[in-house]
Amino acid sequence: MQSGGSSNEEDKFQVRKLEISDKSKGFIELLQQLSVCDSVSDKQFEERFQELRSHGDDHLVCVIEDHHSGKIVATGSMFIEKKFLRNCGKVGHIEDVVVDPSARGMQLGKKVVGFLTDHAQAMGCYKVILDCSLDNKGFYEKCGLKQKEIQMTMYFV
Amino acid sequence: MQSGGSSNEEDKFQVRKLEISDKSKGFIELLQQLSVCDSVSDKQFEERFQELRSHGDDHLVCVIEDHHSGKIVATGSMFIEKKFLRNCGKVGHIEDVVVDPSARGMQLGKKVVGFLTDHAQAMGCYKVILDCSLDNKGFYEKCGLKQKEIQMTMYFV
Repeated sequence: MQSGGSSNEEDKFQVRKLEISDKSKGFIELLQQLSVCDSVSDKQFEERFQELRSHGDDHLVCVIEDHHSGKIVATGSMFIEKKFLRNCGKVGHIEDVVVDPSARGMQLGKKVVGFLTDHAQAMGCYKVILDCSLDNKGFYEKCGLKQKEIQMTMYFV
Repeated sequence: MQSGGSSNEEDKFQVRKLEISDKSKGFIELLQQLSVCDSVSDKQFEERFQELRSHGDDHLVCVIEDHHSGKIVATGSMFIEKKFLRNCGKVGHIEDVVVDPSARGMQLGKKVVGFLTDHAQAMGCYKVILDCSLDNKGFYEKCGLKQKEIQMTMYFV
């Protein structure tokens, strides 16, 4: 999928599912680069982890671990929405994609997005969608996505 | 919540949760105004209905029935996404909002969106989000939402 890089490099940066032990490998600190994410206790983390796991393949958090540093350097998540629309169709929603600045330039973001879109397709989704800033439009176009609509929000806190 | 309309009118257009019997009241035909949605059998509908119901308050499809015609004239849905971000926060995703042309001008869309955002807030979400066309931006602004990001998509079929 990626160009360049030896097979060693490839092995070093495999996408895999999130594991409980990833909390101690900087997973939360990585997410903090995206938005407010302080004070997640081990207990909170484990409860949320189990809750998400109870959805089976309908929810997926993937990570890339740098085996050299032992740190999580990239992540992204997906949940599968089930609709009545499109003949009871399914849509994959991509959320919370982030690559650590130390690991940029190795196409890890593209690897994460590819992993998630492959999952959505395997799950029978008719499309995947995500929201991003205009700044990130070019990156997602390189991942094969196209701009379609606009995102509206309402914050409660 | 709405201005104008007698209390009789108000009673006539209450928002409520989707029921199995709504399939025979034009619910699927209403959705067809949004996107492809043909050939949903009673069995498919019931299976999807039960599947969504198994998520409890984390998934909600609401409708407005016109008790005069016995038809479903407005609908919208929401699912609650659970994150690690924002201190294991929750986000309400609004999807598939549509009002039948015969029932426009009565603020039913606003009623549906208000019902869904109230639900998200009651469920402890820190925000609600939705994607819409530029044409619908003004409507959602009237509902209290603001434009933030852009939506990217990849279609598989």
